Amino acid sequence: MTKMRIGYIGLGTMGAPMAMNILKAGFPLTVYNRTASKAANLIAAGAQWAETPAEVASRTEIVFTNLSDTPDVLQILFGENGVIDGSHPGMILVDNSTIKPSASREIYQRFHEVGVSALDAPVSGGDIGAKNGTLAIMVGGEAEALEKAMPVFEAIGKKITHVGDAGAGQVAKAANQIMVAAQMVAEAELMLFAQKSGVDVARVIEAIKGGAAQCWTLDVKPQRLLAGNRNPGFKSSLQAKDLNIVMDTARDYQAVLPGTALNSQLFNGMVALGEGDLDNSAVIHMLELLNDTELKTNP
Amino acid sequence: MTKMRIGYIGLGTMGAPMAMNILKAGFPLTVYNRTASKAANLIAAGAQWAETPAEVASRTEIVFTNLSDTPDVLQILFGENGVIDGSHPGMILVDNSTIKPSASREIYQRFHEVGVSALDAPVSGGDIGAKNGTLAIMVGGEAEALEKAMPVFEAIGKKITHVGDAGAGQVAKAANQIMVAAQMVAEAELMLFAQKSGVDVARVIEAIKGGAAQCWTLDVKPQRLLAGNRNPGFKSSLQAKDLNIVMDTARDYQAVLPGTALNSQLFNGMVALGEGDLDNSAVIHMLELLNDTELKTNP
Repeated sequence: MTKMRIGYIGLGTMGAPMAMNILKAGFPLTVYNRTASKAANLIAAGAQWAETPAEVASRTEIVFTNLSDTPDVLQILFGENGVIDGSHPGMILVDNSTIKPSASREIYQRFHEVGVSALDAPVSGGDIGAKNGTLAIMVGGEAEALEKAMPVFEAIGKKITHVGDAGAGQVAKAANQIMVAAQMVAEAELMLFAQKSGVDVARVIEAIKGGAAQCWTLDVKPQRLLAGNRNPGFKSSLQAKDLNIVMDTARDYQAVLPGTALNSQLFNGMVALGEGDLDNSAVIHMLELLNDTELKTNP
Repeated sequence: MTKMRIGYIGLGTMGAPMAMNILKAGFPLTVYNRTASKAANLIAAGAQWAETPAEVASRTEIVFTNLSDTPDVLQILFGENGVIDGSHPGMILVDNSTIKPSASREIYQRFHEVGVSALDAPVSGGDIGAKNGTLAIMVGGEAEALEKAMPVFEAIGKKITHVGDAGAGQVAKAANQIMVAAQMVAEAELMLFAQKSGVDVARVIEAIKGGAAQCWTLDVKPQRLLAGNRNPGFKSSLQAKDLNIVMDTARDYQAVLPGTALNSQLFNGMVALGEGDLDNSAVIHMLELLNDTELKTNP
């Protein structure tokens, strides 16, 4: 059976390794990126270059996009020589970006009108999951389109969930970020609370691991912070962006989220401090400022 | 080798099954409870009754206490015919209650003066952990006393961590509750956010389980809430009490915890609503009120 021709647009930290996994799975791959140099590895591995997003679409059956925010996605899809200009009936569009659910619904509508089925398919699992092809993928859109694209999804992800109609994948990703942000802030608060109370923070973490507070965050992040390591991982600037998506969407639907509103502010503060490139666990710096103290480290 | 004689005071939801596990492990057990009838099962199983806390202490080598709040503990220890009146040099006091770290430090000091080593040893794991002897126990106090009491601890708990000096066990338990409360509130916010966004909540939970947001709370609580089950589990009133301990202690040590402050308020609201006897995940009701909506259930 001939493999479907795939396009991938947006070859950043996440997109590049995801595109590479699609290529490795044997799909003929055409790529485009605003900064062309980022495509070099993929082209060396056998991918074709296209000069515009429209050209990617005209050559392929499924087009993936992976960009950092809503305006970037809209520009690539609907700007000059955008994906929609090269699209053709029966094509499938898969957007791996994390953007507003309302934008994903608009994208679905506009492509639906030209006979293209669009899936919103944001991912979770970070650059390591992207490299290893073990991402969780949360999908909104038509079940038939997902079924057709499934062999490609299986090349990039381990857990693929069809959440619902267009936008539902973005809602799930937003919900995910509500919990992640809450854990990051709570982790920061409990570590500084323990330190200010005069107790060894590492021992406190050891004592509470695996109990009712158990979470991936506590399993992984405190030991990095205690070693003085605040490198990403998942950047605070992206956590801030994702929480701004949550709060925008909450306003659209009159959802009241007091905890997330606070956490969103703390991550916006990381950007204001010029620390957006640090890990999301580095939000502890906002709490260090409020507490006039620094977390003691054992490097 | 003769087994140490053990006393257990406070035979509530947690204390009664913990005392039973000590008895089953073969330790001669003397018990006291303000409501005597709660001791019936233990006495039927071979425990001795004592008329006062002092009498428990005078007859035993290690005295356990397990009461619901700081004033109750101080009354049992230092009130009329309190534990300290029957204490004797070399005795060990183990307090399984969750109380303020500063109170545990005071208890340590006052017992230290009469030759008794006091351990603060709050537990996590709920009534099921208490019954099965699988509690996590967070211990503050002298290592020698913990070592001596360890055979008894092993009858009631699975994971026993010596966190540090007197009060350190309470600090770890408080830190644990900071994270648990944050997860309960975030879970409530993300479920109502998904529902208001028009997406199936159960599918969202399924999509985000096992990813970066993974936690015991998400693994267990949403399916109960979606089934319309808000029974405890761990009561909201106890979560509120534990968070008030956190905030009191934060004030003592000038720790600034904005997220926990908010979560503490939401749990105090559960008590104000007369819903303190519901599970801590039932804090979603506070968010339902703010959102003028109810979580849809599939009973």
